[in-house]
Amino acid sequence: MKRAFETEVRPARQSITSRYAGQTVVAIGAHPDDLEIGLGGTLAKLQRDGARVVMVVASIPKDFDLRMTEARRGAEVLGCELVFLMPEGPRRLEDIKTCELVSMLDGVVRDYQPAAVFTHSSADFHNDHLLIYNACQPIQRLAYFDLFSYHPTNCRPVPVAFHPKAYVDISDTIEAKMDAIGAHASQFGGRGLDTEMYREFARMQGRMIGVPYAEGLDVGRMQLH
Amino acid sequence: MKRAFETEVRPARQSITSRYAGQTVVAIGAHPDDLEIGLGGTLAKLQRDGARVVMVVASIPKDFDLRMTEARRGAEVLGCELVFLMPEGPRRLEDIKTCELVSMLDGVVRDYQPAAVFTHSSADFHNDHLLIYNACQPIQRLAYFDLFSYHPTNCRPVPVAFHPKAYVDISDTIEAKMDAIGAHASQFGGRGLDTEMYREFARMQGRMIGVPYAEGLDVGRMQLH
Amino acid sequence: MKRAFETEVRPARQSITSRYAGQTVVAIGAHPDDLEIGLGGTLAKLQRDGARVVMVVASIPKDFDLRMTEARRGAEVLGCELVFLMPEGPRRLEDIKTCELVSMLDGVVRDYQPAAVFTHSSADFHNDHLLIYNACQPIQRLAYFDLFSYHPTNCRPVPVAFHPKAYVDISDTIEAKMDAIGAHASQFGGRGLDTEMYREFARMQGRMIGVPYAEGLDVGRMQLH
Amino acid sequence: MKRAFETEVRPARQSITSRYAGQTVVAIGAHPDDLEIGLGGTLAKLQRDGARVVMVVASIPKDFDLRMTEARRGAEVLGCELVFLMPEGPRRLEDIKTCELVSMLDGVVRDYQPAAVFTHSSADFHNDHLLIYNACQPIQRLAYFDLFSYHPTNCRPVPVAFHPKAYVDISDTIEAKMDAIGAHASQFGGRGLDTEMYREFARMQGRMIGVPYAEGLDVGRMQLH
Amino acid sequence: MKRAFETEVRPARQSITSRYAGQTVVAIGAHPDDLEIGLGGTLAKLQRDGARVVMVVASIPKDFDLRMTEARRGAEVLGCELVFLMPEGPRRLEDIKTCELVSMLDGVVRDYQPAAVFTHSSADFHNDHLLIYNACQPIQRLAYFDLFSYHPTNCRPVPVAFHPKAYVDISDTIEAKMDAIGAHASQFGGRGLDTEMYREFARMQGRMIGVPYAEGLDVGRMQLH
Amino acid sequence: MKRAFETEVRPARQSITSRYAGQTVVAIGAHPDDLEIGLGGTLAKLQRDGARVVMVVASIPKDFDLRMTEARRGAEVLGCELVFLMPEGPRRLEDIKTCELVSMLDGVVRDYQPAAVFTHSSADFHNDHLLIYNACQPIQRLAYFDLFSYHPTNCRPVPVAFHPKAYVDISDTIEAKMDAIGAHASQFGGRGLDTEMYREFARMQGRMIGVPYAEGLDVGRMQLH
Repeated sequence: MKRAFETEVRPARQSITSRYAGQTVVAIGAHPDDLEIGLGGTLAKLQRDGARVVMVVASIPKDFDLRMTEARRGAEVLGCELVFLMPEGPRRLEDIKTCELVSMLDGVVRDYQPAAVFTHSSADFHNDHLLIYNACQPIQRLAYFDLFSYHPTNCRPVPVAFHPKAYVDISDTIEAKMDAIGAHASQFGGRGLDTEMYREFARMQGRMIGVPYAEGLDVGRMQLH
Repeated sequence: MKRAFETEVRPARQSITSRYAGQTVVAIGAHPDDLEIGLGGTLAKLQRDGARVVMVVASIPKDFDLRMTEARRGAEVLGCELVFLMPEGPRRLEDIKTCELVSMLDGVVRDYQPAAVFTHSSADFHNDHLLIYNACQPIQRLAYFDLFSYHPTNCRPVPVAFHPKAYVDISDTIEAKMDAIGAHASQFGGRGLDTEMYREFARMQGRMIGVPYAEGLDVGRMQLH
Repeated sequence: MKRAFETEVRPARQSITSRYAGQTVVAIGAHPDDLEIGLGGTLAKLQRDGARVVMVVASIPKDFDLRMTEARRGAEVLGCELVFLMPEGPRRLEDIKTCELVSMLDGVVRDYQPAAVFTHSSADFHNDHLLIYNACQPIQRLAYFDLFSYHPTNCRPVPVAFHPKAYVDISDTIEAKMDAIGAHASQFGGRGLDTEMYREFARMQGRMIGVPYAEGLDVGRMQLH
Repeated sequence: MKRAFETEVRPARQSITSRYAGQTVVAIGAHPDDLEIGLGGTLAKLQRDGARVVMVVASIPKDFDLRMTEARRGAEVLGCELVFLMPEGPRRLEDIKTCELVSMLDGVVRDYQPAAVFTHSSADFHNDHLLIYNACQPIQRLAYFDLFSYHPTNCRPVPVAFHPKAYVDISDTIEAKMDAIGAHASQFGGRGLDTEMYREFARMQGRMIGVPYAEGLDVGRMQLH
Repeated sequence: MKRAFETEVRPARQSITSRYAGQTVVAIGAHPDDLEIGLGGTLAKLQRDGARVVMVVASIPKDFDLRMTEARRGAEVLGCELVFLMPEGPRRLEDIKTCELVSMLDGVVRDYQPAAVFTHSSADFHNDHLLIYNACQPIQRLAYFDLFSYHPTNCRPVPVAFHPKAYVDISDTIEAKMDAIGAHASQFGGRGLDTEMYREFARMQGRMIGVPYAEGLDVGRMQLH
Repeated sequence: MKRAFETEVRPARQSITSRYAGQTVVAIGAHPDDLEIGLGGTLAKLQRDGARVVMVVASIPKDFDLRMTEARRGAEVLGCELVFLMPEGPRRLEDIKTCELVSMLDGVVRDYQPAAVFTHSSADFHNDHLLIYNACQPIQRLAYFDLFSYHPTNCRPVPVAFHPKAYVDISDTIEAKMDAIGAHASQFGGRGLDTEMYREFARMQGRMIGVPYAEGLDVGRMQLH
């Protein structure tokens, strides 16, 4: 690399006003903990900047009460509302018909009229995550919200082909994110797994935009204002 | 298609405050008329919403004085500043070394410290357009601006594989766009070519977000605020 | 864009004899109205040029009698034969096993020995459309017909990553297409939806080959004669 | 693989009339022997079926007289016309400016008004082949001919990511193809290289459509008649 | 092609010691005969070079006893162990829940602690093959084995978009492969189908690395030692 | 994420014998420091495990003596041989004709008969890096070596679409890598740039295979032994 880099790194001096302040955004995750891992810092930041943030947990396959409690604690840490798509008891997403799942998510769009929806990515390989990603495509026909995908969420790192295009500076909310992940004790500490890799990963993402910590999102569609 | 669409189309009620108000954005085109065709409506809108908009025309291969005059008229219609990267006379981009072209564009970044840069797309097939697209990749290392690509620009329609991700509602500036394109008389009327297809195309793009006219952009990288 | 375009646009002077005249072509759609929206103009043209055109409607999820009547009217307008894959009553495609769906489509290939098959595209995001697309892949093993995909079909425009490679001039059959779409009153007028965007879209596609109206197809495989 | 394949393989019974009979097609290759290797069987077949076939050899980098003589012999074997884009002496394609190369190919389109153009593929890795491929993209703006790409051409097999979509049955012209390749003695026998792999490769392609020998093409754009 | 190829083809002089000697590798196929067709030569070679090779047949949809017998004969010819994932009777993969299928394959990883896993490819279009491919993605989280995909397996050739990156020289085991395929008489001879195309295909693959016969694999992930 | 991960992470117990022990491998970088950044840990490991490792630096655009000295120091730290493709003085790669660059790299293949070649990636955006990547494609025709690409190399992090498929555990050579990068003082310390991000990045890559530090490579082609 032969080019000189004499200039200072100058973080863009952009408006502090949040893009979604005063509006509602909806984040959809297949299971408890997916949203905290995938974009917990972004959700906390959106909430602090004045958006109404609704976390939608699509299903809880087992340990229903425990995981519901952990999900509530996670949302509380982030300061966000929490909605269970199937609050009646343990369900597996693959036991739901696609048309029913789309219909439930259509209902979310109608109820919350979101300015933005955040969902799983097509680069994920967990079947339930892909079911949610796929079901979020047709709901785009109902209204013109922005649509983003967050990084594939795993408890252990596996190489995935995800290319974030939009970055969110989460330097102010990284601790909230880590705490919210920690709320899911049954998934981490309970299995002897450590969550520190999420902090390291946010740090690498932060390097892409010259801030301490960031989360990366792929852009499905958006309106530029 | 079996799904019901009972709901009204509700344009998202988002802040009227422009993302780039009070900041500088830079749009780079290989030749005069590329910026007007590719994102003239967006540039006019950004300017009206309070951004400083700098149009950079990289080269004029021939008819130097005529095309410089047309470029000035186009920028004037859009209300934007105009900069010629090579104002000294007719030049072809392929006669410039890549390292020199990158160096010139590095200079643009240093001079204007843009919050966003708009450039050609990798889906374009005009060699000069690709040279500009490629030269805009390394300038990303200098600072953390948003980077977008506009639709391939042609005088006649040819199928291209361009997928816009970010849409700009240009319903208020479509006439400015059409007028600015019209300023390049030597490229259209002078050849018996009509510019109406750009209006039709903006209308199809508008359909994607439920507004009369829009322009679509691909997202290279951006920060979400 | 600096290149001169002094020449006239000359539509290629190609044989008026249809590629499939005297042969059978099969078009497969997930539901009534998909074929009219996706390639109604092409089907009408193929029929007028001497091909036997068989429209296969895979399923009717609800309003069985009404939609069957609309499908018959649509096919009548286009002058094509109509076959229901599951004529016995309302069915959802996701309730059919993949191996059964492939087996039914194998039967279509055996019964009609088509020279060409037209199906949904992998760029579609409606789950039922994808089920049909996927089930059309293995039927290729049975015989050597041409295989094409038509544009994703929606009642409202949503950005999709579909790149047509083969265009059909439907200038003579655009009205038949619009009428055939209109036959599906329950899907459009009945919901307050307008169908004019399909005409606009055919006009944009027509621009790609220099004719008033066209439909674009992706090529799965074909033999060149 | 569990599915039954009880049916006979039935080659599609399509019209013997060639798609391009009575019209002109142009095939463009970077150097002598590229067209014979890439689609010699197709060219011979098109000629036999009544098309005027023009082989355009873009450049001869060295051994000018010898390779010109071989190129003439190759075209003669296939029964096609031969045109040298730079007949004045040895030239390397990378020494020609892109705008000049496009201009020369524009001239070919104007002179021959082709119904189809065949060129190198973007999957090729020889720099000169890519220069020809790229220069063939903008010539599409001049008129509405079909555009196809042939398989990357090499003297030794190297894995490439080329997916043919359109197949041509060359069972009747495989010997002409092999003879035409053999005309380029300086490239094969003269180096101790054998050409038999081209026959084997045509045989594998033939398997894809159930005929003894075939060539595969990618589709840039085409009109379906 | 103008470049000289004066050098001899020199097969790389690499260690004869197998990468997986003394370790266990697992190959997973949807049905009997998939592994023999996809990588029979590789499995025989791995076994001869000192690896423990476990062939996992996921399901037998019908003709249970006959196909079980054929599978045993195929594995015997290759010298490999054979495991049936569902030995209790005829099952279709699409009748198994994804989470159960992943759970069964998790069990395989736990039981055999493989150094490498070979599975179907995402370029395959048989639904059952894709179900296996997809279910093999999440098992990567359990341990750090190499993961490869073999060529789509069909009884008749259909074009697929598969690009092998890693080649295995099977010149010494091509006859074992052909014999192992032949063991599945019910799928080939019993249907009047011939298996010779697999030999031809291995020969074309061999050309890519300069050996008589080869099999090509795509690389999911691997460690380089 | 609902799946249990009860098992221990077990690093694969594979042979300590290096794949390339006793053979020659060649790594090609556009400028001094590219190889140290891209795969310094891998090169040091290959050398320690018994391979002859040749680092080829293609060009030095300016500060010739200084950067040559730094390159020598970097190679020395890694324990590898160093070759300058253009040792006669400062040169820019874009001033070299492609055919000459390929010819020089052909010479490297003939001289060293490598078992493996490591080069830049197509995901890189530095024009000189891409020139080297492209020129390494045709040299594959000369002999059957493995071909790998290393991660795009930058002095500042910019998002790139690079997907490593093959990982090398560099836990034992991470310090050598960091020291070798540090040898290029004119590129880092001299500009006020810090190199610590390369350690962090190697740590994230290490997480993918469960080791402290790793480097990721893309696979162009390889033989599996």
